[in-house]
Order: sequence, then structure tokens, then C-alpha cells
Amino acid sequence: MNTTQYEFGMVGLGVMGRNLALNMADHGVAVIGLDLDPEKAAALETEAGAGKPVRGTISAEEFVKSIRRPRALMLLVPAGKPVDMVIDSLLPLLEPGDIIVDGGNSYFPDTDRRVKELAEKGIHFFGMGISGGEKGARFGPSMMPGGNREAYERLRPTFEAVAAKVNGEPCVTYLGNGSAGNYVKMVHNGIEYGIMQLIAETYDLLKRGLNFSDEELQSVFEEWNQTELQSFLIEITGEILKKEDEFTGKPLVSMISDRARSKGTGKWTSQNAMDLQAPVPSIDMAVLMRDMSKYKEERVEAAKLLPNHTLGAGAATEKSELVNQLRNAFYFAMVSTYAQGMAQLRLASEAYNYGLQLQEVAKIWRGGCIIRAVCLEDFRQAYDKNPALPNLLLDPKIGKDLLDRQQDIRSILKLAIDKGIPMPAFMASLSYFDAYRSETLPTNLIQAQRDYFGAHTYERIDREGLFHTQWS
Amino acid sequence: MNTTQYEFGMVGLGVMGRNLALNMADHGVAVIGLDLDPEKAAALETEAGAGKPVRGTISAEEFVKSIRRPRALMLLVPAGKPVDMVIDSLLPLLEPGDIIVDGGNSYFPDTDRRVKELAEKGIHFFGMGISGGEKGARFGPSMMPGGNREAYERLRPTFEAVAAKVNGEPCVTYLGNGSAGNYVKMVHNGIEYGIMQLIAETYDLLKRGLNFSDEELQSVFEEWNQTELQSFLIEITGEILKKEDEFTGKPLVSMISDRARSKGTGKWTSQNAMDLQAPVPSIDMAVLMRDMSKYKEERVEAAKLLPNHTLGAGAATEKSELVNQLRNAFYFAMVSTYAQGMAQLRLASEAYNYGLQLQEVAKIWRGGCIIRAVCLEDFRQAYDKNPALPNLLLDPKIGKDLLDRQQDIRSILKLAIDKGIPMPAFMASLSYFDAYRSETLPTNLIQAQRDYFGAHTYERIDREGLFHTQWS
Repeated sequence: MNTTQYEFGMVGLGVMGRNLALNMADHGVAVIGLDLDPEKAAALETEAGAGKPVRGTISAEEFVKSIRRPRALMLLVPAGKPVDMVIDSLLPLLEPGDIIVDGGNSYFPDTDRRVKELAEKGIHFFGMGISGGEKGARFGPSMMPGGNREAYERLRPTFEAVAAKVNGEPCVTYLGNGSAGNYVKMVHNGIEYGIMQLIAETYDLLKRGLNFSDEELQSVFEEWNQTELQSFLIEITGEILKKEDEFTGKPLVSMISDRARSKGTGKWTSQNAMDLQAPVPSIDMAVLMRDMSKYKEERVEAAKLLPNHTLGAGAATEKSELVNQLRNAFYFAMVSTYAQGMAQLRLASEAYNYGLQLQEVAKIWRGGCIIRAVCLEDFRQAYDKNPALPNLLLDPKIGKDLLDRQQDIRSILKLAIDKGIPMPAFMASLSYFDAYRSETLPTNLIQAQRDYFGAHTYERIDREGLFHTQWS
Repeated sequence: MNTTQYEFGMVGLGVMGRNLALNMADHGVAVIGLDLDPEKAAALETEAGAGKPVRGTISAEEFVKSIRRPRALMLLVPAGKPVDMVIDSLLPLLEPGDIIVDGGNSYFPDTDRRVKELAEKGIHFFGMGISGGEKGARFGPSMMPGGNREAYERLRPTFEAVAAKVNGEPCVTYLGNGSAGNYVKMVHNGIEYGIMQLIAETYDLLKRGLNFSDEELQSVFEEWNQTELQSFLIEITGEILKKEDEFTGKPLVSMISDRARSKGTGKWTSQNAMDLQAPVPSIDMAVLMRDMSKYKEERVEAAKLLPNHTLGAGAATEKSELVNQLRNAFYFAMVSTYAQGMAQLRLASEAYNYGLQLQEVAKIWRGGCIIRAVCLEDFRQAYDKNPALPNLLLDPKIGKDLLDRQQDIRSILKLAIDKGIPMPAFMASLSYFDAYRSETLPTNLIQAQRDYFGAHTYERIDREGLFHTQWS
């Protein structure tokens, strides 16, 4: 039995677990990995190379005994039942004060249940979202941990060592109680859905609506990545559009099926936003358009019956001017999408007692994660100035950024409407802005209707109380 | 103890239960009502008047014993725990073959649980949506029952007697298994949310956007109710806009707070649609705008920081022409909203084995319920012609109705965009149409992105299998 004291234990040596463990080793953190598959356990040591403080094992007992107490160990196993099974198998070996970190995309109520169950045994349980994919895990992810404040100190040095850095600041911090980490990661993914859909709509307008060539499309995204739109998702879109298909020589993206898939975190974001009454329309539309893509046969049928004769005919506006408008429109819609997600986090923090600090969330999203973007620094500064800011749109600088660009998103949407190109996430981003800045909304009429047919009563603007009217 | 054999029993003599019982009595159905409140029990007999076969009681034993076997009894008590409590209290008095109908807005998974639990005791449980409010209950509601096919025959004569009639056809029919009735009612309410939001957006564009006077607004809705828009919700909107406030003499609607409330059925529709991957964007936006209305203080703040200077300035188009465009736009958006809801029903019927027949759903929604409208007859005919129609937009007549009106909804939305009036439900209705009739959507790019950062793989359009690419 190995008696070295490892600083950290990693359970599950698949793509994410292995890469994160290697990342730890690179930063001098002695790490032991556990996997029931001997090949995976051995591969960890081989990949780390000689001289690295890394060990792989298939023995849970050796694994647990080799970790410095109080033990810190992380699970990177599929969300759901596997997490519970691994916990159950390790529990008899653990001692009070030990810490289990779940690094997967667990559904946040599951995390709250596990925190509670394990607390009764003196074990600290953390739910931690990790973003950045395989490459992020290996060279610096954004990490979103939630759990017990004091216990976090045992994890902090390791996490700060492996996380992505922006201006020397690590993209990890203690976020809050209970399932705070999973919740923040869920909304991160919801925003990711939103921005991916905005990019897809941009591509659709230019390609199908306006006949932009593949080279033109690629240049648009490459150029945008040198502007205020600089971000991981814009960057990879430029690279994707450049990729040639090995079979046909055409752009690879044009050979990919338009049936999109999803793994649930976007849907959870939208569904939970509805429970919290937090409007996130751009995320809702992004989730929905992935669903819409499923109905390929119906769409092919509908395209025959309801043909669109306005596609591809070009626009009155000159191309470079149009791309400028679209860049501003994209910025507007992207900021609106972040604002929706951040407002949802604020409401969730109140509802679930997370104690989130949104400036910290903006800070750790600046690097490592899929939604990293230069605009996150603006958001951090907005929340730094006013930690209680109810909505990013109420920050004077961000508000002005949007006011300055509103004509462009209006122009682009009018063009899309004429072209019959569906841009529901762009539309939702503008509607969110227009509704949020409406002192009065027409929902008074809805209240009157509800009282008319259901006697649901209404409130007045000029006196207290609930009123009911015999309308007819 | 009363020994008369009553045809039907009603539990819960609040507004809905009392009125439905009186409706039964009007049609010669002998009915006994049970309520723990002696005043309510007595009021039932008083209100029915002399000579009517009606009795009210506070004794559960008398109640159950007085109903003809197999017994048919309906609960009209608040959804949730009260339903289970009432069932538990009556169960010892019931016999195999008896039928309990839950007439409230129960959440459909609760109904499935109750169906199963009671089936073990030989009791048939029905979930039945009832729409039409107080007046509907009294003089003819639309009723949406689901449960055991054979047991329905015991209920059918009573239900057909009391339901609303359209051309002599009752607005009730057996819908399907298990929670089919509650599910259909839930989606009915989702569509109701959608149409109410469309009306509110119409009102907002005309009033806040274009300075229409109260008289002009009222005329618009009164005139529309004489057209293809004829429907309960358009009709009551005309009446609501006419109503004067007793305190101020102003239009009452203008004195009502714009914080809208909701009771959950719209939200359930949207959330479950996401689970089924059924896109219902107009309903989503309607649910969301009620939520948005909550944030009054933030909106007041935002209106100062992000002012809209384009409100109220009128439009280039002549008013009567504009109202014509808007009428066509409304029709387009309304049909799109129904199409979304009906498509959700079709998917739910497959997922939950309801065995729904959509021509029957359209038929019983033509009268009695809140979303009754002349267009429902078109929908019924579309499903009569093709019961397997995947979407109303694929019916040639309905498709042509929308194609004929698409320019008008595009014109109206461009106007709303210029005015800064949020019309998210109209926008979603058009996006749904434009996306549904798109043979290709840009979701291929989303699949490429997912493969880039998460190695999620993708499908190709030209060969079978799952592919992964090293993109960078």
C-alpha cells in the first residue's frame, strides 16, 4: 500500500477527470486518481510522465487512505445515479471533516439533498460547475464551487492553482451555500445556449437571407473577434467556418445535420426561471430552437406548402454597413442575454439563500469558460460599483452601450422580418429591453380580463386593496 | 335519511360547484351537493328554487348513499392537498365501480397518481378540466374529461346535458386515458395566456405607441368581434374597454395596476412543453410577460435611464389601414398560437398514451370555454380531414390563411420595433411560422460548436453515424 500523502483525490478518470488531475500535477499538486478501469488508472500515470506527483489506482481503500486529512476528493462521474453510487461506495472509508466535490453538471436540487445527507455524517459536500471542456480542464477551466464556507479553505489552494487566470486572478472563487455552484453553472449554460443561438441566427441571416459566401462569413467572425465581441464562442465560430470537410472539400459545417441536440442544462435554466418568475426570453428561445430543429420532416413539408420567396436576394444596405449594424445588434442581444441570466442568479440567490456575489460570478466567467468574453469585465465593474444592482441594464455605462446600439438591432430585425429569417433570440433580447424599460405595461388589461371571466380580482393604481367588478 | 336516488353528486359548493349543480338541475338531472359549510349546503337548495331535484347536505354518509349506483360524483375543491383529503374521507363510503371526477385545475401528474391509486380499489378516477368561469358553469361550460372509457358512459348523459352547445353539439366528449382531461385543460390555459398577451400587445401598440383614444380602442375590438377574430376574449376586451371607473369616471382599465398575476397553468404548459421538446414560443412569452410585469420598481427606474422617445408620435400609415393590418396580424399570431398548443397536445398524447383525437378537442373548444373562437371550426375541419395532421400550419387552407396575412404581421412588427413597443408574443408567433417553414435551420453551426468545445459529436447530411472533428 502506497503511503504517500496526496493533496487531492480524483474519482473518475474519463476525459474531464484525467485532464483536471494532470492540470493539478502540472501545478505541483500531488494527486491520486481512482477508476475501476485499470487502463484508465494506469493511463493517468503514463500521461503525466516521470517525476510528476501522480498516482492512479483501482483500489478505493488505497485511494482514500492516501489523501491528506481532512481529505479533499472530487467526483467526475456522470450526473444522476452514478454520483450517489460513488458516494455510497466511498462513504464507509471517509471520516468527519472530509470533503467531496461533485464536479459534474448535477441538477441543483440533487446537490442540496446530498449536502444535507452528508452533513449528517460530518462530510462536507460541494457542487462545483466546471466549464471549459477538455482543453479547459487540462490547461485552466473556470470553476464554480458552492458549499461550506470554511471547508472551502482546504480546496482553495488547489483550485486557484489549476483554474484559468485573467490578469493573474484565478477564475475560481467560493460562490455560496448549498447548490450555489451547480446553479451558477446551470445559468452559465443557459447563457451559453442563448449566445450560441444568437450566433446561429447571425449566420442564418447572412447566409440564407443574404447569400454571403463562406469566405465572407468566416471573415465576419474573425473580424468580430478583434472587437468588443471578442469571446470564446465568436472565436471558435470563425475557426469552425474555416474547416474543410475531408470527404467533400466543402465547408464542414455545411455537411452537418441541422438537428441539434442538448443535454438539459439550458432547459433547466428556463424551467427554473419560470418558477422564480425571472424572465430569460433569449435563453427560452435558444432552448426552443434546438427543439424546433428536431422536426426536420415537418419543416421540409412546410417549406413546400409555405414557401419563402424572399431568401437570398440581398439587401438594400451595403454589405460592410450591414455587417457593422449586425455587430452592434449582436452586442446588444448578447448583453441583454447576460443581463437576463445575471438577474436570474440574483433572484435564485434570494430564493435559495445562496449568498451569491455577482461581481465574483462575472469575475470567474472572464476566463476559462465557454461564455468568456471581454464584456464580462464591464459586468464585473458594474457589480463592483453597485453589488446590489438589480439588473445590468440599470448600470449607466451598460445602459448607454445599449442605447447607442438600439437603432442597429432594430434595423437588423426589420431586415430579418422582411427576409423571413427566424431570429427569435435576437427578437427576445430586444423585447426584454423594451419591456424592462417600460414604466407601464399593458398587463392591466390582462388583470381586467382575469377579473372578468374568473373573478380573480385586481389591484388599482390609486388605492389599496383588491377589487372585483361586475364587468358585463 | 333521504332515500331519493340522485343521479349525480357534487362535492364542494363554492362558486363553480354550486353553479354546475344548478346547471344540472336545470336540465332535469337530480343532484345532491355536499359541503361542510351548512350555509353553502342550504344555499344550493334555496338558489335552485322549488320543484328542482336538488339537495344540499353536510353529511358525507347521506351524500354517498343517496347517489344512484354505480355512483357518479364530482369534486370542485382547490387543486392539490384538498383533493387528496376529500378522496380519503369519501373512500370508505364508496364501492367498486363508483366514479370520482376531479373538476379542478389539478396538475396532471397528480391525476395519474390518483387514477392508479383508486383503480386498485376498483374506483374510477377522472380528471376533468372545466372552462368558462362562473357563468360557464351555470349556463354551459366546455368540459374536458379523461379517464376510463367505459366508465365515461355513466357520466356522459349528465355532461352532455350541462355542457355548452354549438350547432346542437355539446362541448364535452371523452378525451382519453389517465390525465388526458387535465392535460388538455392545461394547454387550453396556455393558449389562453398566449391570446390574452396578444390582445395586451395590440392594446399597447395602439395606445402607448400610437396614441389611440379610449373610444377608438374600444371600437377596434368591437368591430373585430364581427370578423374572423370573433371570440370570447376579443368580445370581453371590447366590454372591458367600455367600462367606466366608478371612482374617477375614467376608463376602469386605466386605473388597474399593471402587475399581472397567474395561477400556474400557463407556466406548467411551458415547462412541460420543454420536457416534450414541443416549441410553444407564444405561450412562453405570455407567461414571461406576466412575470416581467412584477418588476414595477425596476421598470420605473429603467424608464428614466433608458427613455423611449418614439412613443405616441403616430404612424405614417393611415389609421384605418393600420387597424386592418393589425387585424390580419392578430389573426396570424392567434392561429400560430393555437397551432403551437395543438402540436404540444399531439406530442403529449404520444408521450403519455392519451389517445387524444384533436378534432374532438377543437370541437369542444368551439363553445363554453375561454378560448372559444370561430376559427376553432376551421381547426376541427382540418383535423377531420386529416386526423394525423402534425401541425395546423400544414393544413392547406390554414396555411393559405397565414400566407395571405404574413405581410401584415411583418409590417406591424416593424412598426412596433420602431416604436419600441414590446410585442414578444407577436414576434414569437411569426418566428414560429418562419422557423417551421425553414427546410434548413442554422442549428448545424450549433452542433459544430458543441463538438468543438465538448466533443459532443454530430451527424452528417450525407452519411450515417456520429462524427467528431479535431477543429483547431
